[in-house]
Parts: sequence; structure tokens; C-alpha cells
Amino acid sequence: MSSLPEPLAACVDIGGTKTLIGLINPEGRVLARDRFPAANHLAPPEQVAQLVEKFHALANGAEVAWERVAGVGYSTAGFLNSERTLVFASPNQGNWRDAPFKALLEEAFHLPAYLEMDANAAALGEAWFGAGRGSQHFVYLIVGTGIGSGIVVNGEVLHGWRGTAGEIGHTTIEPDGPLCNCGNYGCLESLAAGPAIAQRARAAIQQGRKTLITELAEASELSAETVFRAARLQDEVACAILDKEIDYLGIGIANVITLLNPQMVALGGGVAVGGADLLLPPLRRAVRRRCGAWIDLEHTEITLSRLGDEAGLIGAGRLVWQEIQRGTVANFSQYNVK
Amino acid sequence: MSSLPEPLAACVDIGGTKTLIGLINPEGRVLARDRFPAANHLAPPEQVAQLVEKFHALANGAEVAWERVAGVGYSTAGFLNSERTLVFASPNQGNWRDAPFKALLEEAFHLPAYLEMDANAAALGEAWFGAGRGSQHFVYLIVGTGIGSGIVVNGEVLHGWRGTAGEIGHTTIEPDGPLCNCGNYGCLESLAAGPAIAQRARAAIQQGRKTLITELAEASELSAETVFRAARLQDEVACAILDKEIDYLGIGIANVITLLNPQMVALGGGVAVGGADLLLPPLRRAVRRRCGAWIDLEHTEITLSRLGDEAGLIGAGRLVWQEIQRGTVANFSQYNVK
Repeated sequence: MSSLPEPLAACVDIGGTKTLIGLINPEGRVLARDRFPAANHLAPPEQVAQLVEKFHALANGAEVAWERVAGVGYSTAGFLNSERTLVFASPNQGNWRDAPFKALLEEAFHLPAYLEMDANAAALGEAWFGAGRGSQHFVYLIVGTGIGSGIVVNGEVLHGWRGTAGEIGHTTIEPDGPLCNCGNYGCLESLAAGPAIAQRARAAIQQGRKTLITELAEASELSAETVFRAARLQDEVACAILDKEIDYLGIGIANVITLLNPQMVALGGGVAVGGADLLLPPLRRAVRRRCGAWIDLEHTEITLSRLGDEAGLIGAGRLVWQEIQRGTVANFSQYNVK
Repeated sequence: MSSLPEPLAACVDIGGTKTLIGLINPEGRVLARDRFPAANHLAPPEQVAQLVEKFHALANGAEVAWERVAGVGYSTAGFLNSERTLVFASPNQGNWRDAPFKALLEEAFHLPAYLEMDANAAALGEAWFGAGRGSQHFVYLIVGTGIGSGIVVNGEVLHGWRGTAGEIGHTTIEPDGPLCNCGNYGCLESLAAGPAIAQRARAAIQQGRKTLITELAEASELSAETVFRAARLQDEVACAILDKEIDYLGIGIANVITLLNPQMVALGGGVAVGGADLLLPPLRRAVRRRCGAWIDLEHTEITLSRLGDEAGLIGAGRLVWQEIQRGTVANFSQYNVK
């Protein structure tokens, strides 16, 4: 048995604009990778045919025998049904709906395929091989244009009853807060995602407040990043906007800690990563203020994600190894993956 | 094997003022029960000795052979360590701290013993044999003098990393809300537990509002129940107070549904049960308003608990059967509990 070559997972991360693929070993290392524009113009069977082609080219280029591949892991920005066999629809993915990607992948690759939504896959990747390395209870919080999360409980993605768990961005934390895209008022996303930061800056400028943001926004579009740049120059208005941001994110994170008691909350997404230097130290204090005294935050780390835009890809690998470990992939049980 | 007598779990629920014990079969039926005042004055070993005595009397009275008892399930109002072997301290339990109840019970009963905190045990009981019958994803929300919860994920209690998960009462839902006992502001508990309802009624009276609550409160102490009675008489002030209550509970429940996607949220506790006729129908609408459109509430029932004050006792039984099912109780594996 020791003479068997190391097995690999063929992993895919389908984003809104780009697709990542990689061959990943049982320790989470990406042995070969490729990225190409998302195949928005193709129907699902043609997308899968393109993946087969890209993977074979990748394996050939890396001189990896395709026989080593044990399964396909597929992370998608689209919505999945609760059995995770169909992709209902994907952002920017053209006109199809309810495409049976699990079956399409299994037929085309002649391998078992496992599907997961991108935030969940990224959480698995970070919990397994990134910031959370080995965490059994882990929250991956994505703060960008929206706010999403993937939750890991006892080492597995928390899907809930119908697969919709983890929508922390749409928990209410300010009952009379602004209208959110989801139709509710005062959701965390409406208060603390990137557009809310930019909106506070625009409001300050409209009120005639003197701020560096005004000049900085002349050169490029006003965004959360503009506010970060002004705050780094000690601009008072920008700093006040970030104080507000930290208060809201602190509540969101404290709520998830209070409810789930994770070992770690790792932050990802453009806003959290781009503003980490400004946000992270005060955020830890804000979370402390919002947690009951019995919660020992020495046991719950609040940190940045580590895998960057490969978190979902690596999480897709974890999906495959988790199933093999369970013994559900009969042909490959000889690999005895830890 | 079919000639083996049905196995039983010896179950205990230690409350602040009373103790319940029962012999429970693998289908969750309580074959014999007893209740007696909590033994606050006794040290832990004497409490356990008293339990042995009470159980033997119970088994004798019910003509049950003690050999049928497969394990001990112990639900407590006290705090447990993360391994659930020690009870740190229990409300109204005298001067002891960090008592090794698991070891004490196993020595005294010569049986495996399993400990759980009362809200978690009650959630297991309700998910298993009460309102949630068979639910794998279940939230038991207790609204009384405080607000607590027990969360079941994939059929098991969600403990989190150090055992403190489930404190929904201390999630923030109104950043500038009232000071809570926990030191935070605007926790669900500070806004929607019984004392918050009574406090709103007192404030209305102090403001000189004309309300039936004033007369009703002359006969007995002003409590949430007083407000319920006035609301049933169509008192305007009382109805407005309950509207507020429903708004806050709606946010708390919507947040937990958004984050965890349970199959059911069952309400227990004095306030929820006492005011169920007034609270429950509008509460479902309030939750709907606070949930994103993608959440199909036809798949998440919001209902009342069914087991009343035996939920924790029956959940303690579930603890025992769950361990036997896992095969961790070697001597009793022949029972093959479903």
C-alpha cells in the first residue's frame, strides 16, 4: 500500500468572472493550478467539457498521471439545492437554471464529484489548511461588496435544514437601520459592507464636512478603499466612519461568537483584507465590549484569512478528502486519507 | 436478543428549586417519575447518594428491575466544563464549586453518566420526542426571566469550542438598547425577557398612561403575565407593549433562522408559554418581515415546546441513548437502540 502514488483532488472554484482549477493533495497543497475567464457564454455541459480539457492539460503539464485523481471538488458562486447536486443559477452565468452539475461532472470525469457554495468551501479551506488549521469550530466572515459567511461546526460545513445557513450578513443588528437588498432593514450587510462605508463618506461630503476623502475621490471612484486611505492620513471624518464600521462589525462578530462559540473567526473579502491594518486591532476590542463576561476571547481568535483567493479551491479539495475519509468513495478507500 | 427486557435510562433534571427524576425508555417514554425539592443544603457526594436512594425507591415502586438501567443522564441548571464532567456551580446550590459530578454519578451508580446543561438537554428532549420529533436542526428558545437557547445541529447539541454556544439572549439586536445583566447593551434578553415587558408597563404607568395594567397590578405584582391579562382585555397600552415584544423576539428568531436554518424553532419558558395565544401568530409574521426572501419559512416551523417541564429530563434520556447508539457504552450494545 505504501507504493501507491499520492491521490489528488481535481478542484474547481467558479467565481463571477474567473474560474480557478487545481490539483490538490490530501494535505491541502496545490500541486498545479490554472485560472481562466469564467465561461459565462457556455451552457453547463460545455462548461464541464471545458473543465475536462483544462484539467487534462494541467495534469499533462505537471506530469501527473490522471489515474491519481480520486474525485472532483466544485466550489461555485451559484446557489445549490439542499442535496448539493443542482446549481440553481450562478451570477453572470447566462440563461440556464437548475443545472445538474454533480451528474454532469461525474459523467464527464468518471469520478465522484462534490459541490459546495463558495463561502462554505472557503470556510472549509481556511479551517482545514489556512488561518484555522485544524479548527473544528470556525467562522469565515467575508466583508466586501456584501457580507457572507461560511460556518464550520465539528469540522463540517453547517448547512442547516435546507442549505441556507450562514447568512450572517442578513441578521438584523439595528432594527431601524437602512433598507437592505434583501428587503429587511438594519442587516449587518446594509450597515457594514463596502457600499455602506462609501455611503457614509458621501453623506459627510454632502453635509459639507471638510475631509481628505473629497480630494482622494476625485482621482478615483469613492469606495471603502478611499476611506481607508484618508484614515491612514489621520483624516477625522474617515476615522469616524471607520469607528462606526468597527462598532457594527464588532456586533456581528460578537453575535456569532455568542451563538456558536467558534475557535476562530477569520475575516476575508476586499474590505476586511484591504483595511485590515485599520480595522483588526480595534475590532478585537469592539467584540470584547459586545460579548458577555463568561466568553473567554483568549479562546476565540479573530484574525485574517490566509489563503486569499485560493480558499474556495482548497476547500473544494477538503470536500473530496472528507468524503474519502468517510469511506463513501469505495474505489479509493485504499488511500486511507487521514 | 428479542427476549432482553427493554433498557432504561435513569434521568435527572436538577433545577434551581426542584429535582425531577425518571426512568425513560429508548422511545422517550417516562415509565416512572418523581420530584422533590432541590437538595441545596447537601454537598455533591450526598446529593448523589440521595439520587441513588430515590432511584431505587422509584424502580421498586414501579416494579422495574434495576438491571435494566443502562446509564445515567443528568441535566443541570449549573455551568459545566467543556468536557461536561464537572459542574462549576449551580444556582442556589450552596458553597461548593467544580464538583466532579460525572465521576461521582458513575461511582455511585456503577453506570456510565452523561451530563448536559439544562437548556441543551431540553432542546435535545424537544427535538427528539417533543415539538421537533425527529428534527436534525432544531432551536429551543426559552423566554422567561431570561432568554436562553439550546441548539441542535445534525441531531446533536451544538456546544462549540468551549461549551458556551447557544447564548442567543446575549446577542445584540439594538446597539443603543438598555444595559443587560451581562454588561453589554441591547441584548435580546434586555429587550424581550419577562422583566423588560414589566419594565415597559411600569414606564407607561409612570408616564400617566391610562391602562388596565394599573388596576390589575394592584392585586398582584406587575409582571409579564399582568400585561398579557390586560392585552386579552384589548387594553391599548398592553397591546402596544406586546407589539414591541413581538418585534424584538421576531428579530432574535429571524437572526437564528438566518444563521442556522433550523427545521423548527420551539418556544418554551414562562413568558412564551404564558403569552403564547397573544404572541405566536403575530410572531410568525414578524419573523417573516425580518428574514430575507430566499428563506422559505414553510420549511421552518415556529411553534411551542410540548414537553413542558419534563423537556430536560427527557433530553437527559436522549443523552444516554445517543451514547449507546454510538457504541461507546460497550456493555449495553446488545440493546441495539435505534
